[in-house]
Amino acid sequence: MENWDGNEGTSAFHMPEWMIQFADQKQEFNKRPTKIGRRSLSRSISQSSTDSYSSAASYTDSSDDETSPRDKQQKNSKGSSDFCVKNIKQAEFGRREIEIAEQEMPALMALRKRAQGEKPLAGAKIVGCTHITAQTAVLMETLGALGAQCRWAACNIYSTLNEVAAALAESGFPVFAWKGESEDDFWWCIDRCVNVEGWQPNMILDDGGDLTHWIYKKYPNMFKKIKGIVEESVTGVHRLYQLSKAGKLCVPAMNVNDSVTKQKFDNLYCCRESILDGLKRTTDMMFGGKQVVVCGYGEVGKGCCAALKAMGSIVYVTEIDPICALQACMDGFRLVKLNEVIRQVDIVITCTGNKNVVTREHLDRMKNSCIVCNMGHSNTEIDVASLRTPELTWERVRSQVDHVIWPDGKRIVLLAEGRLLNLSCSTVPTFVLSITATTQALALIELYNAPEGRYKQDVYLLPKKMDEYVASLHLPTFDAHLTELTDEQAKYLGLNKNGPFKPNYYRY
Amino acid sequence: MENWDGNEGTSAFHMPEWMIQFADQKQEFNKRPTKIGRRSLSRSISQSSTDSYSSAASYTDSSDDETSPRDKQQKNSKGSSDFCVKNIKQAEFGRREIEIAEQEMPALMALRKRAQGEKPLAGAKIVGCTHITAQTAVLMETLGALGAQCRWAACNIYSTLNEVAAALAESGFPVFAWKGESEDDFWWCIDRCVNVEGWQPNMILDDGGDLTHWIYKKYPNMFKKIKGIVEESVTGVHRLYQLSKAGKLCVPAMNVNDSVTKQKFDNLYCCRESILDGLKRTTDMMFGGKQVVVCGYGEVGKGCCAALKAMGSIVYVTEIDPICALQACMDGFRLVKLNEVIRQVDIVITCTGNKNVVTREHLDRMKNSCIVCNMGHSNTEIDVASLRTPELTWERVRSQVDHVIWPDGKRIVLLAEGRLLNLSCSTVPTFVLSITATTQALALIELYNAPEGRYKQDVYLLPKKMDEYVASLHLPTFDAHLTELTDEQAKYLGLNKNGPFKPNYYRY
Amino acid sequence: MENWDGNEGTSAFHMPEWMIQFADQKQEFNKRPTKIGRRSLSRSISQSSTDSYSSAASYTDSSDDETSPRDKQQKNSKGSSDFCVKNIKQAEFGRREIEIAEQEMPALMALRKRAQGEKPLAGAKIVGCTHITAQTAVLMETLGALGAQCRWAACNIYSTLNEVAAALAESGFPVFAWKGESEDDFWWCIDRCVNVEGWQPNMILDDGGDLTHWIYKKYPNMFKKIKGIVEESVTGVHRLYQLSKAGKLCVPAMNVNDSVTKQKFDNLYCCRESILDGLKRTTDMMFGGKQVVVCGYGEVGKGCCAALKAMGSIVYVTEIDPICALQACMDGFRLVKLNEVIRQVDIVITCTGNKNVVTREHLDRMKNSCIVCNMGHSNTEIDVASLRTPELTWERVRSQVDHVIWPDGKRIVLLAEGRLLNLSCSTVPTFVLSITATTQALALIELYNAPEGRYKQDVYLLPKKMDEYVASLHLPTFDAHLTELTDEQAKYLGLNKNGPFKPNYYRY
Amino acid sequence: MENWDGNEGTSAFHMPEWMIQFADQKQEFNKRPTKIGRRSLSRSISQSSTDSYSSAASYTDSSDDETSPRDKQQKNSKGSSDFCVKNIKQAEFGRREIEIAEQEMPALMALRKRAQGEKPLAGAKIVGCTHITAQTAVLMETLGALGAQCRWAACNIYSTLNEVAAALAESGFPVFAWKGESEDDFWWCIDRCVNVEGWQPNMILDDGGDLTHWIYKKYPNMFKKIKGIVEESVTGVHRLYQLSKAGKLCVPAMNVNDSVTKQKFDNLYCCRESILDGLKRTTDMMFGGKQVVVCGYGEVGKGCCAALKAMGSIVYVTEIDPICALQACMDGFRLVKLNEVIRQVDIVITCTGNKNVVTREHLDRMKNSCIVCNMGHSNTEIDVASLRTPELTWERVRSQVDHVIWPDGKRIVLLAEGRLLNLSCSTVPTFVLSITATTQALALIELYNAPEGRYKQDVYLLPKKMDEYVASLHLPTFDAHLTELTDEQAKYLGLNKNGPFKPNYYRY
Repeated sequence: MENWDGNEGTSAFHMPEWMIQFADQKQEFNKRPTKIGRRSLSRSISQSSTDSYSSAASYTDSSDDETSPRDKQQKNSKGSSDFCVKNIKQAEFGRREIEIAEQEMPALMALRKRAQGEKPLAGAKIVGCTHITAQTAVLMETLGALGAQCRWAACNIYSTLNEVAAALAESGFPVFAWKGESEDDFWWCIDRCVNVEGWQPNMILDDGGDLTHWIYKKYPNMFKKIKGIVEESVTGVHRLYQLSKAGKLCVPAMNVNDSVTKQKFDNLYCCRESILDGLKRTTDMMFGGKQVVVCGYGEVGKGCCAALKAMGSIVYVTEIDPICALQACMDGFRLVKLNEVIRQVDIVITCTGNKNVVTREHLDRMKNSCIVCNMGHSNTEIDVASLRTPELTWERVRSQVDHVIWPDGKRIVLLAEGRLLNLSCSTVPTFVLSITATTQALALIELYNAPEGRYKQDVYLLPKKMDEYVASLHLPTFDAHLTELTDEQAKYLGLNKNGPFKPNYYRY
Repeated sequence: MENWDGNEGTSAFHMPEWMIQFADQKQEFNKRPTKIGRRSLSRSISQSSTDSYSSAASYTDSSDDETSPRDKQQKNSKGSSDFCVKNIKQAEFGRREIEIAEQEMPALMALRKRAQGEKPLAGAKIVGCTHITAQTAVLMETLGALGAQCRWAACNIYSTLNEVAAALAESGFPVFAWKGESEDDFWWCIDRCVNVEGWQPNMILDDGGDLTHWIYKKYPNMFKKIKGIVEESVTGVHRLYQLSKAGKLCVPAMNVNDSVTKQKFDNLYCCRESILDGLKRTTDMMFGGKQVVVCGYGEVGKGCCAALKAMGSIVYVTEIDPICALQACMDGFRLVKLNEVIRQVDIVITCTGNKNVVTREHLDRMKNSCIVCNMGHSNTEIDVASLRTPELTWERVRSQVDHVIWPDGKRIVLLAEGRLLNLSCSTVPTFVLSITATTQALALIELYNAPEGRYKQDVYLLPKKMDEYVASLHLPTFDAHLTELTDEQAKYLGLNKNGPFKPNYYRY
Repeated sequence: MENWDGNEGTSAFHMPEWMIQFADQKQEFNKRPTKIGRRSLSRSISQSSTDSYSSAASYTDSSDDETSPRDKQQKNSKGSSDFCVKNIKQAEFGRREIEIAEQEMPALMALRKRAQGEKPLAGAKIVGCTHITAQTAVLMETLGALGAQCRWAACNIYSTLNEVAAALAESGFPVFAWKGESEDDFWWCIDRCVNVEGWQPNMILDDGGDLTHWIYKKYPNMFKKIKGIVEESVTGVHRLYQLSKAGKLCVPAMNVNDSVTKQKFDNLYCCRESILDGLKRTTDMMFGGKQVVVCGYGEVGKGCCAALKAMGSIVYVTEIDPICALQACMDGFRLVKLNEVIRQVDIVITCTGNKNVVTREHLDRMKNSCIVCNMGHSNTEIDVASLRTPELTWERVRSQVDHVIWPDGKRIVLLAEGRLLNLSCSTVPTFVLSITATTQALALIELYNAPEGRYKQDVYLLPKKMDEYVASLHLPTFDAHLTELTDEQAKYLGLNKNGPFKPNYYRY
Repeated sequence: MENWDGNEGTSAFHMPEWMIQFADQKQEFNKRPTKIGRRSLSRSISQSSTDSYSSAASYTDSSDDETSPRDKQQKNSKGSSDFCVKNIKQAEFGRREIEIAEQEMPALMALRKRAQGEKPLAGAKIVGCTHITAQTAVLMETLGALGAQCRWAACNIYSTLNEVAAALAESGFPVFAWKGESEDDFWWCIDRCVNVEGWQPNMILDDGGDLTHWIYKKYPNMFKKIKGIVEESVTGVHRLYQLSKAGKLCVPAMNVNDSVTKQKFDNLYCCRESILDGLKRTTDMMFGGKQVVVCGYGEVGKGCCAALKAMGSIVYVTEIDPICALQACMDGFRLVKLNEVIRQVDIVITCTGNKNVVTREHLDRMKNSCIVCNMGHSNTEIDVASLRTPELTWERVRSQVDHVIWPDGKRIVLLAEGRLLNLSCSTVPTFVLSITATTQALALIELYNAPEGRYKQDVYLLPKKMDEYVASLHLPTFDAHLTELTDEQAKYLGLNKNGPFKPNYYRY
């Protein structure tokens, strides 16, 4: 990853081929004037950080104790000290958070129940690197109930909920994570997860690819015992495909990011709600009658457009892909080039995954009070760096909201400095996290139990039947009643009564 | 196909393995009391008939002439008699229809223009078997302009527009088709297309698989020269996959049915409109406040649900697939079993592709005046046969609308006798047909020009880039302006500026 | 009314002041070349004709008998000949139609049931002039069950269903109406209703104002015994207000047209559905992605816009009233002047009630294949007369659809020659007619039973409580369950538990 | 007002007849256990407080200074001390807030421009009692620009923005208001506005009726010079109608609350957005698939239902009024009694204006985690008092969110303790406030300039033409272009080209 490789003086790592793509991002990034320290800065260009960082506040004040957790001696009530968290005494509060989350993650709880008879992960030694939240805790404790041993680090230096980490440590999970790690802490924590006497992981659960990368670089021999990698993020998956293409992937990997439930929920349905939430919380604007241009009509763009149209906005769409463009047309949106409408719109939203979609030239032409924000991924879509020039004045009007003021007095309203609006300025419902966590658990089970030869050294999508199983576990939330095929119908359709129900190329 | 094989006494054909699945359908069907003659009856269980039969009326009266076209001697104005149509004198009227269709099929017209320089189908000898309509004529004449020679038969004994067939014959196309063919005529026409002295097809364009089947049975050696098959229908594609599975497919085949443009347009968008149209034309009902249950939440079901919800109906959904079920929930529909709501709903719509989704038991429990119709495929979804019992009275109240009356006076309103509502009772916009026809043309070009070895003896989806090209040709209709990637952006995304823009598993 | 007064040579009538407004309409109209005969022509500018003419076909062929009903001697089975219909023998077929309509008019049937104990119209002698349809028959027979005597004529020379008229005559109602009356027949029929020995009406139910006008002109003394007028149409109501303003209204009149149930149902909800229906039946167009301009954002415009937006059209709105304009903005429609979008739109729909909203200049600038239609009222909104010029070619492509072709080949698609699309090209659901008919019945009951002095010689809206009652009678159709106020709540709100629930100025 | 009359021991006031209705509310309220002090408590039952209290935070810390403003000696930079605010030094910050608000209140700014030539309020002496916010400041300064002298107090003891009050005082407005007034302060401030030597108000602008009441009680003679009252709130209007009914209203009053722009914007459109905002900010819930019951289908209920349906919730409606009920049906909502769905819904929202719509019995039957909130008015709709019983545990989980826990562990999530969700937990867009403020300004102009006799001692709605004018001033925000009638069209419609465009009973 760019951040730990870029510091060439202090690092022994070479940048692998699959990292070159991200290099230019970093270059730009480093030019940006900022008050944030270098280390945290370099972390923040980790894709996994920006992709999944939740704005949920930590519930207790962690500023009261300036000692680094690495320098503390802590033990849980059973006497174990195989963990490193901010403050083990916060465990009780964290436990309550976990219990609340359990109520809203019925699918994982259902998996636990089924695990009372069989332990599909018996013998599994899972090393994980994800955000450490109450929802992750429910996942980890579910993996434990299914028979696995787990060691865990955080995939983001900011996102750890210290109380939850404490609760996990208290109940015996070796967790190495706290809110506000330095970059050095970050890698130290990961290393503590994998570099253990008498314990070698045989499964990897990763979010962003940092853990995977660390093992590749430092302990490549570990892969001999590893049965597979489960990866959740866009970035991590991208890296796995590049490894695979280059012939360097040495274990099977499961691409959880592109499972249908994750795509439709995290993207389409979740963005349908979070675009409204993010805009309201930051600007208190009224949607009715506003002119909006949405750049990109993938799942994220579709969600944003649907919500804004429903609230009475007039929505324009830009696209590069003619198929998505045709969908936008049929869904009732005018397909334009950004230049055609940039002078008239009240809001610009990027949802492309691309870079420099909104350029300084566009920003120069926007009308006074135009709101600009990013729902895509990472922080590249709006050329925010181009606004860091002397003739423009920045005014922070509230948290996550800057006014950038032109010499003639024109202001644009920039949200979250161009980072992801929904992660910075709105929250992610537990229900969505539950779907992803359940998918991760099933992917681990599948890879761990797959007979020799079912999966090769390649990147796989979750078998459709498992996708369907994840979905079925979430239906009771809606009091939804599934119909079963009769024997006659199953025969007629040439389907097994229990699925899978669709060919692999089915689009939903 | 089941219909011509079932008449064992009069046919030399054996039923191949890949037809067995359909046999039970036919058994049931034959038990059904009906006044329709045997021949037309047996035709009507052809999947391709019911899948694509358009209700569009023939514009001139064809009943004035009882002579079979096979017994007539007709010549076009250039002296050719290599065709067989109802009446060559109707050519002028048909030409006007074709000209009107050309206006609404800009993509094919654009292909023609590009063909002025190059002839990508030069040397192609295409034998086709599709509905013979003005839109098909535009396709055929485009194939001609691209360099191909064509011979054509109808895939349905009812759907031929005689005037259009005449116009095609007049301009030199060997067409063998008329409205109201007998079963014997049907096969005779197909045979006249392929069994010609001094001409052997090297490409097949099929809709339903009858032409392909005929060549398999009668002229298997022809496949030595055939470069590929392009198939449009669900049924035809199903058969090709079964042939492939059985190792009997001896040329590459292109599955046009599952291309994204066709799926989304023919199914999602088109059904969104045609469900309303079909219900209004047959029943003049008001949608507002009506309770509706839609069985199946695939693309067709999604389209029906969206339209009815938008018109103020209260919509319930049934599903067997938990993923589609979860989508229904997130889209705001209560997911139920049919039994739970069958007593209270005003309308029942099937969109499953399955059989006996609505059983006699369901029909018995529906409330008075409940409307029952099928938007799925074929005529199996509603167990209409179960209503052909002595205690129930059938009353034909208008074309395509029957009241079935229970002894206690309860009536249900059955539309199109359970056949496809949108094909029987509404019309298909030319724009949708244009997308399919363009896709067919591009699939032919691709298969014909593919270098040796690109395609094996298997069933393929259209390369994504071609799907994208079809879409791009239809954007001008909406005055839609596509954005182009900059070089820098293309490099960042790792994409070619001209596409394809998405991985193969992308769901749109 | 303008049409029968204009023929000064053949008519004894003077045009009253309140007709002057319509005169210019007629002037234009008469200039228009047409093949339709003069009489029917002059009838067709009757507002009531165009406002309410249903396209529903007559079910039996009435062309078999060329004898004028006025020249026939007919008796019903009880020996009465106090009626004049096409053919009394069609009564049985008409009776079946009435029975079907009864099933869908539960509110009137509920009124009948309540009438078994009391007869609120006992002694009422109602003369009516409305469309003669199955739904009207249910109304008339309900009035009869409530104690009234009725005599009835048609308000439109085309809209009478002969079978229904026969059924009414057979069951004893003096009905004077048939499909295809001449203008002379029209007035003869009205006169036969009012000019009877030994019978004088004391209530008037009118639709369009022709009956009221006739009595004003010919039998002004009748008003001494008349307790009130119930009028349904925009035009008739307009005339009543003008009479009132001029101090010439000599009995109370009830404006049924502006009751909230009628406004919202006939206009908002009904148009929401009929715009789609009318466009589909005439053009088979696809709505998705089409650009549409809707002129006028009243209830009709709101209904049209909502439906088209829901089907994926891109909708622009024009308005003269800033309040409606602001609503359009908040509902997500761009508010434009017609000129701004006329070159780009695919469909132009007028919903204004105004004249010359679409001018020849607009028509000249529309793009090829643009569809033009009117959902407002009357036939004045599109300046169709301006298209009747030598340089333009008219081509009738199907019923109600004309192509008007410019010298350069551009075609516009004109629907229903600019008359009301929903009445000409779609059907009106019985449910909507039921609401209007129930409102008429209650208005008659109210006026007939009102204590002396409650109503003066003015035009009134239906008392809110009656509007509410009409609504409540239609809730069972939707299996809708109303909540009742507790005593405590009623006291808190200062309301009677049975309504009325809203102040008179409430807007719904 | 009920609260200051109830404390009979400490108050000289008698409760007038028109306050009796509210008395029982207060009784209940006083029984409620609470930690809030008595005075603030009694204030909170002021209708105007709960109707319009904005949650917008004060931008500077006002807790730093415990001295009562009444005890301070403050002067503005011009030497005036005719005001009483928290801290005159905060004026600069407040000025910036006002300037930002000016940008979003173009209608008032447009009025100011027009006032450069004429001063329609020259000579007006306006005493006002409203929330003191930046938007109010823009209104006040506009009134000043139009020629009026103003004196102002706050209508709510909590809602004053101290910085804005300071800015107004600094620029010369006698303002008497601060955040956190005691009840005594409240009346003292009002009194300081009216009880001035050498200055008598001739216009009243009131929000809630407290100012009006004070003058009625203390200075009835002032009404001799007062030209009229402009009142904005539901409660204030209700009181005026009761005064009028009792023959005690001695000047004309303008009911601004029921103007169409206010009704549709504050209620329909604003609630459409704020229901989502309020629920998200408090609960982070996902809307998709949730079952919701909305009690009441007036403008507020319509807005809530539309938004939730659009976000994928399944919405049920309860109603007492059959007309609104029928609208709910036609809009696609199942109309139920609350009892029918109370066990299954995830959210209960009240929008009735009624009391005890959600009773303890309902609350007992809700399922675990059900969310309960109020969008109607006041705090009476949910019987919150019934939850203050020993067997239930209250847990404050975040600001405005309480978990109420049953003995069996069931929790319901109560928002804002049953007070208005949108005012407590979301914000009101400036655009909406702009419409109301403009309407108030025009109402003042109209009453002040009306010729003798136009308005009697009664309550009036704003003349339609002024409503239209308010709307027209807000169209430029949307770049909306109004169409003008031609002379011919105006004549045809019998309208003035400049409006008003609709009859008074028009419903929009």
